[in-house]
Amino acid sequence: MLREWKPIRSECIQHFRIFDLMRETYISPRTGDQYPFYILQTMDWVNIIPLTSDHHVVMIRQFRAGIRSFTLEIPGGLVDSSDGSPLKAARREMCEETGYDSDEIFSLGMAHPNPAFMNNRCYTFFARNVCRIGEQKLDIGEDIDVCLIPLEKISELIQNGEITHSLVLNAFQWFMNSECRKKVPGE
Amino acid sequence: MLREWKPIRSECIQHFRIFDLMRETYISPRTGDQYPFYILQTMDWVNIIPLTSDHHVVMIRQFRAGIRSFTLEIPGGLVDSSDGSPLKAARREMCEETGYDSDEIFSLGMAHPNPAFMNNRCYTFFARNVCRIGEQKLDIGEDIDVCLIPLEKISELIQNGEITHSLVLNAFQWFMNSECRKKVPGE
Repeated sequence: MLREWKPIRSECIQHFRIFDLMRETYISPRTGDQYPFYILQTMDWVNIIPLTSDHHVVMIRQFRAGIRSFTLEIPGGLVDSSDGSPLKAARREMCEETGYDSDEIFSLGMAHPNPAFMNNRCYTFFARNVCRIGEQKLDIGEDIDVCLIPLEKISELIQNGEITHSLVLNAFQWFMNSECRKKVPGE
Repeated sequence: MLREWKPIRSECIQHFRIFDLMRETYISPRTGDQYPFYILQTMDWVNIIPLTSDHHVVMIRQFRAGIRSFTLEIPGGLVDSSDGSPLKAARREMCEETGYDSDEIFSLGMAHPNPAFMNNRCYTFFARNVCRIGEQKLDIGEDIDVCLIPLEKISELIQNGEITHSLVLNAFQWFMNSECRKKVPGE
């Protein structure tokens, strides 16, 4: 039986560039005690698998300060208030981070990055027949290498631990299981 | 060509119960500017898929303050300094959160929950032939319902959006693709 946690108060401890740190206090239905949860309130996220007509995934390598190392990922980022929708945000991030674009974009799924202490969602998309349309437009905190990875190599890169970002793993999981596979000509 | 981000300074802004909030400043190799990244430094995480001998996954429903709602997940939590290993932490969390145990535990994989702003890893395990050995031992911030879900229902629960935690999705992805499937008698 799922019992309600009664909210007592919600306080913003500090604002940061990409999240607000909140302390939200509830009464535990099991013990009756007040208990403070620390929550990161942030915008929704998006990521997107861009696939060329010859079955290469347009991936990015970049420095990730969290792990002080370089990663292999797909494009993605925050949904800005000006984007209008997660799909438009994903397309914008794909264009900015890789210089590739397509208007054939399909939804793959949604995940909660961490419902225990983050309020946001990550929406994942697939872009078919992407083409290079111009230069990258990078933010000040970005330095991104674009690399074209054959689609058939992705499973190996996951098994080898070259792709480790949980939300990128989610994206490929959905893609491999989805109807979108059938939309890739010649697959 | 991947260029080094030169670290300038690392400051702890605030300590919290489960993470330290850090500001780490680097020089961008692309622009030469100083750029501060905000990082959550925390312990590694674990999660585990407990499977009974009759092919039910021992799952948990609980309130998640991040999304102010209830979720369906597998057991998991932080690796404590006293655990000794991620495997032991996963087994401890399984016992505490569900009251089920097994000594047949296999590694499924590792993910970075978010390498952009978190330093930690999540290690995922599979426990075979779990049995109920006693009562739950819950933390003050927990109120957990245990539910036995037939293994063959999991894909449907993922597709329906009943299972949305990114790290739980990773766990089932690895399990479905792994050799561990072959260790489930009668599957």
